[in-house]
Amino acid sequence: MPTPLVTLTTDFGSRDPYVAAMKGVIFSIQPRLTIMDLSHEIAPRDILEGSLFLAGAIPYFPEHTVHVAVVDPGVGMQRHPIIIYAGDRYLVSPDNGIATCYIRQFPVQDIRVIENERFMHAKISPTFHGRDIFAHAAAHLARGVPLHEFGPELERAVELDIPEPEMAPKGITGEVIHVDRFGNLITNIQQGMLPDASPIHIEAGSYRLDGLHRTYGEVPMGVPLALIGSTGLLEIAVSGGDASALLGIGRGQGVVVVLDA
Amino acid sequence: MPTPLVTLTTDFGSRDPYVAAMKGVIFSIQPRLTIMDLSHEIAPRDILEGSLFLAGAIPYFPEHTVHVAVVDPGVGMQRHPIIIYAGDRYLVSPDNGIATCYIRQFPVQDIRVIENERFMHAKISPTFHGRDIFAHAAAHLARGVPLHEFGPELERAVELDIPEPEMAPKGITGEVIHVDRFGNLITNIQQGMLPDASPIHIEAGSYRLDGLHRTYGEVPMGVPLALIGSTGLLEIAVSGGDASALLGIGRGQGVVVVLDA
Amino acid sequence: MPTPLVTLTTDFGSRDPYVAAMKGVIFSIQPRLTIMDLSHEIAPRDILEGSLFLAGAIPYFPEHTVHVAVVDPGVGMQRHPIIIYAGDRYLVSPDNGIATCYIRQFPVQDIRVIENERFMHAKISPTFHGRDIFAHAAAHLARGVPLHEFGPELERAVELDIPEPEMAPKGITGEVIHVDRFGNLITNIQQGMLPDASPIHIEAGSYRLDGLHRTYGEVPMGVPLALIGSTGLLEIAVSGGDASALLGIGRGQGVVVVLDA
Repeated sequence: MPTPLVTLTTDFGSRDPYVAAMKGVIFSIQPRLTIMDLSHEIAPRDILEGSLFLAGAIPYFPEHTVHVAVVDPGVGMQRHPIIIYAGDRYLVSPDNGIATCYIRQFPVQDIRVIENERFMHAKISPTFHGRDIFAHAAAHLARGVPLHEFGPELERAVELDIPEPEMAPKGITGEVIHVDRFGNLITNIQQGMLPDASPIHIEAGSYRLDGLHRTYGEVPMGVPLALIGSTGLLEIAVSGGDASALLGIGRGQGVVVVLDA
Repeated sequence: MPTPLVTLTTDFGSRDPYVAAMKGVIFSIQPRLTIMDLSHEIAPRDILEGSLFLAGAIPYFPEHTVHVAVVDPGVGMQRHPIIIYAGDRYLVSPDNGIATCYIRQFPVQDIRVIENERFMHAKISPTFHGRDIFAHAAAHLARGVPLHEFGPELERAVELDIPEPEMAPKGITGEVIHVDRFGNLITNIQQGMLPDASPIHIEAGSYRLDGLHRTYGEVPMGVPLALIGSTGLLEIAVSGGDASALLGIGRGQGVVVVLDA
Repeated sequence: MPTPLVTLTTDFGSRDPYVAAMKGVIFSIQPRLTIMDLSHEIAPRDILEGSLFLAGAIPYFPEHTVHVAVVDPGVGMQRHPIIIYAGDRYLVSPDNGIATCYIRQFPVQDIRVIENERFMHAKISPTFHGRDIFAHAAAHLARGVPLHEFGPELERAVELDIPEPEMAPKGITGEVIHVDRFGNLITNIQQGMLPDASPIHIEAGSYRLDGLHRTYGEVPMGVPLALIGSTGLLEIAVSGGDASALLGIGRGQGVVVVLDA
C-alpha cells in the first residue's frame, strides 16, 4: 500500500515557523506518511481565496487523501474545528466556509466536530489551532482512526456567500473572483452558462472583447482576449501580459457577457 | 522503520537553483530519505531570524531528525561548518549563532566540526557550502554515519547576542524581535515573566494596551490588543489587521509591560 | 529500490492551485513516488530564467530522475510537448528552449514528442498542459513506461538564442544573465575563459573591480567585488549587500573583463 498522503494549504507564508511546526507535529504522530505542501501563500485571512484554491486542487488528488486547510481568522473563538468527508476525500479545517467551493461540487458524506481530546494536543494555544488541533487530527486520520471517533456529527458546514452570476436581459452579469499570478482575471461565469454557437462579446471596465479564444497566444502580444480557463470558468487575459495590471481590473469587478444574436 | 527525515531551512528563496542543488546532492547520496522544506524565506543573511525560526520549528519534530540550516553570510571565511546534537536532534549549519535560540531551550549533547573529507564534496566552492558541505553532511548523517566520524569536538557553538528583556522599576522592558506574516509583533517577553493575576498594561510606540487577551477576535476588527502568542511570548496584534503596518512598529522597537497594581 | 523521483519547476507561483493540480494528477496515477518542488518562482513566462535554473539544478540529481519544467507562454499553440533524455535524466517540458542550458552541458540521447493519448488526460485544456499533458507523462515515465512509447522521435529541440561572451581586443565582453535573491550579478563569462594568473579588472556600469576574490567576506561590508560563483561563472557581488540595488545593474547589462597585462 502506498503511504497515506496529507496535504497542507494555509495563509501562513513560509517565513514564520508556523507551517514547520505543523509538519513536525504530523510527522511526530505518524512518520509513515507523505506531507505535501499545496500552498502557504493564500492571502492572509482570505477564506474565499482559500476556498477557490481548494476547489481547484482537491479534485485532482486520490480518494482518501487527507487535506488540511488553515485560513483561520476566527481562531480561538466560537467556530468549530471540523472534518468534512466529501467526494471520498477528507478536509480538516475550521468551520468558516473554506470548504464552500469544494462541497458545492462534491456532495458531503459526513461532517464531524473535532472534540475527542485523544486526537488533539494536551494544551491548546488559543491562537494556533493549526498546530494543536488540525495537524493532530490530520495525522490521526491518516494513520487510520475512523472519522466517527473524532466527535459528533454536524448537520451542515458554514458556507460562504459567494457571488453568483445572474441572467440579465442584456446577457450574463458576473464578476472577477480571482486574479492569478499571470494577472489573468478569472470570473464566476461558467462555460455551461454560455451559448454554444451564437456570437457574444464581453464587457469589463471600459473594455469590449469580441468572442472567445482557445488559448492565450491566438492574439498578438499585449492584446486582451477572453477564453474559457482550465477550470471551466470565463477568463480575461492579455497575450504575453498581465491583464489585471494592463486593464486596471481586479477582484470584484463586474463582467458582462452580451449575446450579440 | 520510517525513512529518515532531513529538513531544510535557508535564506536562499526559491527563484534560484541553490535549494534544488542541495536537494539533488542529498538525494544522490541517500535516496531513501524524506527531504522536507521548512523555509527558504528567511530574510537574506538574517541569522537572528533564522535562529528564532529554528527554535519555533525543531522542537516539534521527532528525535533524530536531521535539520539543515544555511543562513551563511560568512561562507568561505573562518567560521566552522558544524553539527550540533541537542535535544536528541541534529542541526547541521555554519557556526555563526543560528543555533542560539534552539540550544538555549535544549541542552547541547555534542558538537562536531565537519572536517572529514569523506563526507563532503571533493571540490568545495568557497561561496556555496550549503551544497558542497552541509548537504553532504546531512545525507551521511541521515544514512547512519555516527556523529563522531565527522570531525573533532567543539567546546561551544558561537551564540548570538540576543536582546533580553529587563526588569525595571516601572515593569518589564523588552522589544519586538519578529514581525510575522500577519503583521503580529512578537516580543522577547515570556509569559512566565508576567504576573499571574495583577492588572497590567503594555506600552509600544504611542500605544497603550490594557491587559491581555486570549485570542485575536476578542476585540472588534481593527483594534490593537496584546496576548500570549503560540510560542509563549508576549505579542501585539490588531484584530483582523496588520499591527506592524497599522501601529508603525517593527523589529527592535521597545515594548514595556507596566504593572498597574 | 528507492521510490522514483519527479521534480517540478514552473512559473506558476504557489498562490494559485495550478501546481497543486499537477501534484494531484501525478499522485493519482502513481502514488509510489516522491514529488519534489524545485521552484515555482521562475519569473512568469521567462524561459531563459527557467533554462538557467534547470542547468543549475538537474545535474545534482541522480540518473533517471524525471524533471518536469513548465514555463509555457505558447501553451495550446504549435509548440510540441516533449520528453528529452540527456545526461541519463528525463526532462518533460514544452519544446520552447527551456532545456537549452542543460543540454549544452549534457548531450541529448533521445527526444520524443508526447503524442500517445494513453499517457495524457482524455480532455486537454488548451491553457493548462502542465496538468493535462506534462504531469501525466511524468507520472507514466516514473512508473516505468519506456520513453519510445510516448511518441515519435524529434531530431532536435528548440534552443534559445542565449547571449554568449565575446573575445574583444580589450578583453572579454559578456553580460549579466541572472540576478539572484541576494542581488548577486551572475554573468555569462565562464571561469575557463579567464587567464589563470595575469592581472585583470572588471568593468560594469560605472564601476571598476580589480581582480578576483574567493568569497564575499574578503572585502569590507558594502564594498563591491568580483568572484567566480558556485556554478563557475563570473559574478559581481557586494559584501553583505545587494549588488543589483547598490550598483544599479540588472540582467542584460554589459560586463567587460580587461586583461591588465
